[in-house]
This record gives sequence, C-alpha cells and structure tokens, in this order.
Amino acid sequence: MLYGGIEAGGTKFICAVGDENGKLVERIQIPTTVPADTMEKVIHFFRDFDVHALGIGSFGPIDIDPVSPTYGTITSTPKKAWRNYPMVEKVKEALGVPVGFHTDVNTAALGEAVYGAAKGLDSCLYMTVGTGIGAGAVIDGRLLQGLSHPEMGHILVRRHPRDSYRGNCPYHQDCLEGLAAGPAVEERWGEKGIHLTDRPEVWQLEGYYLAQALMQWILVLSPQKIILGGGVMKQRQIFAYIHEQVAELLNGYVTLPPIDQYIVPPGLGDDAGIVGSLLLAERAVQPST
Amino acid sequence: MLYGGIEAGGTKFICAVGDENGKLVERIQIPTTVPADTMEKVIHFFRDFDVHALGIGSFGPIDIDPVSPTYGTITSTPKKAWRNYPMVEKVKEALGVPVGFHTDVNTAALGEAVYGAAKGLDSCLYMTVGTGIGAGAVIDGRLLQGLSHPEMGHILVRRHPRDSYRGNCPYHQDCLEGLAAGPAVEERWGEKGIHLTDRPEVWQLEGYYLAQALMQWILVLSPQKIILGGGVMKQRQIFAYIHEQVAELLNGYVTLPPIDQYIVPPGLGDDAGIVGSLLLAERAVQPST
Ligand SMILES: Nc1ncnc2c1ncn2[C@@H]1O[C@H](COP(=O)(O)OP(=O)(O)O)[C@@H](O)[C@H]1O
Ligand SMILES: Nc1ncnc2c1ncn2[C@@H]1O[C@H](COP(=O)(O)OP(=O)(O)O)[C@@H](O)[C@H]1O
Ligand SMILES: [Zn+2]
Ligand SMILES: [Zn+2]
Repeated sequence: MLYGGIEAGGTKFICAVGDENGKLVERIQIPTTVPADTMEKVIHFFRDFDVHALGIGSFGPIDIDPVSPTYGTITSTPKKAWRNYPMVEKVKEALGVPVGFHTDVNTAALGEAVYGAAKGLDSCLYMTVGTGIGAGAVIDGRLLQGLSHPEMGHILVRRHPRDSYRGNCPYHQDCLEGLAAGPAVEERWGEKGIHLTDRPEVWQLEGYYLAQALMQWILVLSPQKIILGGGVMKQRQIFAYIHEQVAELLNGYVTLPPIDQYIVPPGLGDDAGIVGSLLLAERAVQPST
Repeated sequence: MLYGGIEAGGTKFICAVGDENGKLVERIQIPTTVPADTMEKVIHFFRDFDVHALGIGSFGPIDIDPVSPTYGTITSTPKKAWRNYPMVEKVKEALGVPVGFHTDVNTAALGEAVYGAAKGLDSCLYMTVGTGIGAGAVIDGRLLQGLSHPEMGHILVRRHPRDSYRGNCPYHQDCLEGLAAGPAVEERWGEKGIHLTDRPEVWQLEGYYLAQALMQWILVLSPQKIILGGGVMKQRQIFAYIHEQVAELLNGYVTLPPIDQYIVPPGLGDDAGIVGSLLLAERAVQPST
C-alpha cells in the first residue's frame, strides 16, 4: 500500500511516497513560491503514483479543528500568497484521496514517536529550534490537541541575569522563541549560529533557556522521551548543557530515565517530518488510530 | 448500577456510592489517621452496598503506572504510616471488585470534564490551589498521563519585582507552589488567606503568579476550559485578576473563548473529586473509555 506525504515548509515543500512501514520510495523538493506554482508541481509529482491517502505536515498557523468551516487552511501566515489557502481541499480535489493535516512539528513528533527515537513508547515530545521554536507531543499514541494545536514555543522563561538581549518576539518580546530561536541567537551575538560553534557561552545560555522550557513540559506532560531537532540543535554541544540544567532545575522532584537517554536528537534525523506525514496519511484512512 | 468512590485526602477520606449518572446516593467522611484504622472504616462503609467497581482519587505521590510492580500504592508521602501502602490491592481484596486509581487532581479534572464546568467538551484543565498546587487535564476525553502523572504545580514563574517573599518549596524554592499555594500566601502576608479577603494587593499578586502558570498550560495543552478550585480560590476576586493578566500575557497570540467563560470556578463545587472517583470506577469496568 502506498501513501503520499508532504512536508510543507516556508522555504520548500518536500513530497514523498512511502509504504505502510514508513519506508520512502520516492521523494522530491519543490521551492515554496506562490500556491498556483508550488501546488501544481506537488500535484504533478503525486499523479505518477497510486497513493491511497495523503498526509500534510504544514507550516502555520493552520486550522486543524475538523469541525471548523476553515479546517485544512493555512490561516494568518505572514506569507501573503498563502493566507487562507485551502490546502486540504485543493489536494483532495486534485487527487481524490483522504487527506490528513497537522502542523509541521506535530507531524515530526508523530514520525519520531512511531519510527524514530521514541519508537515503542506511548508518548514523546518533539521540539524544533530553528527560525522559530515549536513543539508537538504524542500522548497515548495520539497527537496532543485541545482547543487548537499547542504553541509551546512562546512559553515564558526566566531571563538570565547577565543576558541583556531584549528578545524579538512580536507578541511577547522575551518568551522562549524571542530569546532562543535561531534569529535571536544571531541578533544577540552578531553572527549566525553556524559561525558560533566554538563559543561555549553561546550554547550554555541557549541550554539555560531551553532547559527551562523542558522542565515546564516535563512537569505538564511527563513525556517518556524528549527529542530536540531543528537547525540550532545541530550544535550538539547544547545537549550536555541541557542535560545538566534540566537535572538541576528539577532537583530530584521527578524520577526520570538517565537524562542523556531521555533528552535526545531525532532518531530520523531530518526525515521526522516527511515520515510523520506518511503516518498522517495512514491515519486519514483509519481515523481511529 | 452502583459504583463506589473514595476521595482519599491527607486529612479526610470521603467515601460515596453513586449511580452511572454521577448521582451520589450516600456519602460519609472518615478522618485520615493510620491505614489500619481509616481503611477499616472505609471498607465497612462499602460493605453495605452492592457496588460494581470502585474508584479512588488519592493524595500522593502515588504509582499509577499499570505495568509497575508498585502500581496502586502511595509512594514517598511525608505521612509515614501511609508510605508504600498498597491501596488498590487492599480495596480489591476486601471488596472483590475492579478498582480505578488516579491522583486527586486528575480525578477532580475527570469529574469536572464529564459532569461539571467542562461538560460536553473534549478537554479541560483543572487546577487546585490549596495546601499545595496541583493540576490535572483531560484531553480527548482521557486523563493526561505520560511517564507519570503531571506535577504541574512546580513549574517556574517569573517573580514579581516587588515580591520579596523567598518561596517555600523544598525542591525549587520559588516555583509556582512555593510562591502561590495557601501556606506561601500565609507566610508572605503573616496571616491565613481567609483573613486577607479585603486586601486587594494579596489577590492581585496571587493572580499574577497563577496567570503565568495558566499561560504556560494554555500554550502547551490548549484545553477547552480551565477550572480553578481549592481553598485559596474561594477568594473569588482572584478570577478577575487572572482574567486580566492571562489576556495581557498572551497578547492576542492565541484565540480563546471570552476569558471569563474560559477560566472558571468548579461546576461541581467541592464535589469534583468524589464525582470523578465514581467515573474512575466506571472506567475500571470498561477500561477502553
Ligand atoms: N548548524 C547550525 N548551528 C547553529 N544554528 C543553525 C545551524 N543551522 C541552522 N541554524 C539556525 O537555525 C535557523 C534555521 O532553522 P532550520 O531548522 O534550519 O529551518 P526552519 O526553522 O526555517 O525550518 C536559522 O536561524 C539558522 O541560523
Ligand atoms: N476562604 C479562603 N481564602 C483564602 N485561603 C483559604 C481559604 N480557605 C482555605 N484557604 C487556604 O487554602 C489552604 C487549604 O486548601 P484546601 O484546598 O482547603 O485543602 P487541601 O489543599 O489541603 O486539600 C490553606 O493554606 C488555607 O489557608
Ligand atoms: Zn512569543
Ligand atoms: Zn516546587
């Protein structure tokens, strides 16, 4: 059985076809321009395959409330051409198959839960630290969703007393994303993260903020595994700072697995999102799972 | 069909018998002394009824992992006589019926979700602000549970710049519970909360801390309703401060229902826990729900 998956990102769309074991048989990348152009190429790619369903993990904000009249659309994105774009409807119309739809981070969380670092567990939390900070969680095998998808990247953290960077979140200024996403790292230190590899103070401070967020999430969700991906987390040295500071913050209050096996990089590397989108496709056919 | 419920608290046990609609037909209170004494009275009460199952919402910490060898016990409580007490086993042995077991706050959350302020919704968060601070959540109709039950009361908040009280949490000092539970209010202001009703600054500061916690939980769980109970929340004026400050903190980032209908007192008053325990009983018979 073949499934289709789309990882719809702000700079590129990754499209893939895979089987019911999450194995990719074909994939392409398409630049994100305007919907007419990008989506034509997307549809064209899938026409060559007999996919039974399609899953989309999308950049946002998106409407994922199945009973909402605007379900399946990208909503108030700064990318004007994509604003209110009815992604699910367009794909359904063109390909005539069931379509699953979720946020990019939730989709990656699902990929990691089923085939990645949290394989075999009931729950996990996946956080990406890149241009923004987002996180998704799988609890009891299902994607966490209440009133809407979570917006965990904007939680509050305590500022480091020696950090004078003011934060860049347009909504909250110095929330987690405003202090610790890639652009904040760049603005604070005057250089892109990738050129700051040999400055331990950069990554220690990064770990200071991320560890606070993880503490909150551990206390709220108690996930069985925490997976950290995204461009900034390519700086693998951050993990050690996070391990140290999460343990210090929790101070023995919660019993956790050994911390370096508990907070880990993605098992699927950069493929968590696209593999997750195949799972969304599968679940679109069997909505009970 | 009759079910039994126990709200096992640190000072008293409430035992009740009710029907499948959450209606209580009989209830008693038993002081919490030592297990031999308290539990004998508990068992004695239930022997008079033909209950099909029993649910227990218990003070903690407790082991609720169904595959753990110590499942169903109270674990490292400061109440020495109750430490490692196998509550579920004892009740099962004595009464010979299936037993459901969860934390007190989770049980109250379930009661509110099914029969209280969140009736008809898929998700809610219930927080109690009393001797400690705890919270439980129902997501997709089910109690949130990952590695263990959540310990949401210990999340970090930003201190108010003019609050010089140092906090009293033995683990984290100035976490939410350390700054905002009943004993912290009493220690900071030198009087029990009940005698501070006419001092608005007390409740404004209380709202300042509780609002931060709610912001985090909204961003992480996006529950459809938030219910605040416990002794401290009897000061109803706190709600207005919370409404104001949650709206200010989120700053329009998340679309919420009207805030005064979103963050509300318990629909079941002080009965959320005991009603929830009847639901645990019911779910112990039909574990799929
Ligand atoms: N190796 C790296 N080290 C540090 N920062 C990086 C690295 N690679 C990318 N980044 C930062 O991560 C951000 C991009 O994140 P990424 O996850 O690649 O994309 P996006 O979040 O846009 O999908 C940028 O701010 C970039 O500077
Ligand atoms: N009306 C009230 N106003 C303010 N604080 C109160 C009030 N009633 C109880 N409290 C405080 O709440 C705490 C007890 O919480 P409660 O929920 O009644 O019990 P517990 O948490 O032990 O189950 C105490 O610190 C008490 O001072
Ligand atoms: Zn923000
Ligand atoms: Zn604490």
